[in-house]
Formats: sequence, C-alpha cells, structure tokens
Amino acid sequence: MQQYFVNGEAGRFVTIEDENTLKHMFSVMRLQANDQVVLVFEDGIKRLAKVADSTSYTFEILEELQDNTELPVDVTIAAGFLKGDKLEFLTQKTSELGARAVWGFPADRSVVKWSGKKLIKKTEKLKKIAQGAAEQSKRNQIPRIRLFEKKQEFLNCLSEFDRIFIAYEESAKTGEKKVLARELALLPKGSKILFVFGPEGGIAPEEVNLLEKQGGLKVGLGPRIMRAETAPLFALSSVSYAFELMT
Amino acid sequence: MQQYFVNGEAGRFVTIEDENTLKHMFSVMRLQANDQVVLVFEDGIKRLAKVADSTSYTFEILEELQDNTELPVDVTIAAGFLKGDKLEFLTQKTSELGARAVWGFPADRSVVKWSGKKLIKKTEKLKKIAQGAAEQSKRNQIPRIRLFEKKQEFLNCLSEFDRIFIAYEESAKTGEKKVLARELALLPKGSKILFVFGPEGGIAPEEVNLLEKQGGLKVGLGPRIMRAETAPLFALSSVSYAFELMT
Repeated sequence: MQQYFVNGEAGRFVTIEDENTLKHMFSVMRLQANDQVVLVFEDGIKRLAKVADSTSYTFEILEELQDNTELPVDVTIAAGFLKGDKLEFLTQKTSELGARAVWGFPADRSVVKWSGKKLIKKTEKLKKIAQGAAEQSKRNQIPRIRLFEKKQEFLNCLSEFDRIFIAYEESAKTGEKKVLARELALLPKGSKILFVFGPEGGIAPEEVNLLEKQGGLKVGLGPRIMRAETAPLFALSSVSYAFELMT
Repeated sequence: MQQYFVNGEAGRFVTIEDENTLKHMFSVMRLQANDQVVLVFEDGIKRLAKVADSTSYTFEILEELQDNTELPVDVTIAAGFLKGDKLEFLTQKTSELGARAVWGFPADRSVVKWSGKKLIKKTEKLKKIAQGAAEQSKRNQIPRIRLFEKKQEFLNCLSEFDRIFIAYEESAKTGEKKVLARELALLPKGSKILFVFGPEGGIAPEEVNLLEKQGGLKVGLGPRIMRAETAPLFALSSVSYAFELMT
C-alpha cells in the first residue's frame, strides 16, 4: 500500500496540502473516494487512512499501525561534498538503508564548493529525494538533511553523538577490520551514531585528527577500496546486520 | 598505486596489449619509463611492475605482493533483468563490494527483454564496468559477468552453489530477519553462495518455488523495503561484515 509523509499531527480527519504529495496521490496514483493509504505524521506512527473526499483532499484516519521499520540506533551519515549528483545518489540509498540524517560538509579535499542559494537549493533537492525514498522504503521517519556551509559548523555538532566512526581508507589498507564490529556490539539500542566519510579524494589526515580529538574512532570497512558514495551504504548495511539481523 | 588486470600469465617481462588498458596507462595516467604499477594476471596474484619500455608497452615484473582483498567466500549476485542502466549500477557497486560473479536473468516480472546481439553488447559493457570497478577497488579478481537469455539456463546453474539465498520482499514484510545471519555463521570459508534478487516488481512466488526446490532459502534483508538495485549491496555488505569484520 502506498505510504505518504504528512506534516503536522493526526486528527480523525486530515486534509493534505503538500502539492507534491497531492500530485502523486491524485494524478499519479489516481486515488478515489474510499481508497486506502498509509499516512505518517510527524510523530512517526503509521496510520491507515481512506480518502473521505477526493475534491477537498480529505482523509479519514482508520487506525494506528504497529509497524516500525526504523533502525534501533540513530545513524547520521556525514559525507564530504561530492561531485556531480553523487550526494543525490547517496541520499536516496542511505534513506533506503535506514539513515536518520544525511549531512554534507565542505571537506578539505572536496572539489565542489556550495554556499548561499546553491546550498539551499541543493538541500531542498536532497530533502525531496529523502522523502521519496523513505516513502518507498516504508520508513517511519524521513531522514533529516543538512548541508553545512562551513566545516566548523559541522564540527560544532559532534558532541550530540554517543559514538563517532571515521571511515578512513588508510585503516582499511593497514588491515584494521575489528573496530567497527567490536564497537557496534557494545553500543546499546537508541545510541546516536555518526559515520564520517571523506569526499572522492578521501578524508585528510588533519581532518582525522580533528575528529579524533572529539572522540572519533577510525574504522576500516573491509579490505576493498570503495568509492566515496559506496562506503556509507556498506556502513549502514553493517549496522542493520548487527542490530536487526543478528539479534 | 594504479592497478590493472592483464590477460595471461606473468613472466619476467610482459607486454600489455589490451587497448583500453594501454589508453588508461599511457594517455590518462601518462606512465613513463620506470613508473610503477600493480599488475594482476589471471592467477589473481598482484605483482609490482615497472615500465621497462614505454614505446613497446613492456613492463618488468619486480615482485609478487601478498595483498589479497577477495571475500573469503565466493558470492554470486543474480538479479532479474532491470530497467535502464540499473544493471550497470549494480555491476559497478557489487564489484566494489566483492562479488565474484554478477548474473542477470529474465525474471517473470522483468520488463526489459534482451537477447541475441543486444545481450552480447550489454554483457560486454558490464564486463568493462566490472573490470574498472575491480581495478579501483584493488580486487584480485574481476567479477565474472553472465546474462542468461533464458531463465532455464540460469536455473541449470544452481547446483554449483553450496547455499542459495532468495531475497524475498515478503519475508522482510513478515518480519523474517534471522535466517541470513544464522546461515552465514554456519558457512565455512570458501563456500560458494548465490543470492537471487527479483527485478523492480520483485521475484514472483512461482520463481521462489522453483528456487526452493533447488535448495534455495528465503531470507529477509531487514524491515525496510529496498529497491531492486540496492538489496544486493546490502547482501554483500552483510557477507563482508560476517566474514571479514567480525572474525
């Protein structure tokens, strides 16, 4: 059944106002009176709803659903700004794989520079991609998107995490393979985890130092070198394997 | 250091003949006499080599390297034919993530049909993508590519595997989450594993039945619905986590 995220709180009746959502519902999916969908309000609870009036876009909430597909840990993926549409790709795939937030920051080796209007426009684009992917994946939450104009703003946010993992290619090369699995096994459910990834050229040693000073832990993600946009998918899959499939 | 796969066997001196490889070496990377690269012959051993003569494209082999980045199990990813360039995407990413073979087959719900020349052309394209990704990821092996024109040809190949996992969306929906981790924990290193994925519309129940008759095991890959081209990345990451990071 089709699922849609809706702003605000659930009442018995709710009128959808978001234009993109309306377009998908009534133009693409051609919903008619009494057709059912799943609506997810800001509380993250899925609710079965039916079209009460297809001209005023009003739905009647039928029941709360118990279904929760969120990872038991809260994972933020932070990536250095990537070239082309790689951040779009990354946002779509990490949304499917359960990220709670996707961040971008201007890393030392980032080739692209975004600021001002361009940054805002890119952020809006990524938010739409995250919402679409989260709806398709039947998530309870839309990943939060944030692009930092300055690296310092990103660094200022590190204290909110219980654990920071730095995906460092050099760790992979030297055969460091145990830290991630060991640490994931120790983290309780509900933990806030940050994974930091470099841009195409990798994360710079000075950036690794800065992150380590804030408690960041270098981790290898296996012996194969992955592209910048692939490594975050590996990390999220690993978290899911450790917290959802092995328990 | 740049790595290249080379046909044939290693001698003390070797002359590169593949045009794509030569182009990358001498036009893109502008190799000159005495520059070093890693060459990987069909035996899968990495060897340090230097340019002996840049006009005849001759290299001198300097030493064998011990470095092996292959997964300890032999994983084949089989996917129903996918629309657009999704099989290209899948080939690149699964090559980075360690697949030993990438197969495509005409699944019941595959929208695209490939046969004859088109199938050969697509296969050649995917082979090049696999080689490029394997070089970038510093693999010891290039994933083998095979597109089956008939589903029966694909089914005839199932007996070569020690374990067949069927990624079945319905298993995920009903909360099946334990089978994959349990089975991976039981499989010895060196096992040949096949993961079968459906096309965009998923694998059909009749196909699941056929695969189960050949010993296939339905597995859920966590509670979130992944796109057809994303699920194989999750599966390979899980195998890496189980066999490389947890051991």
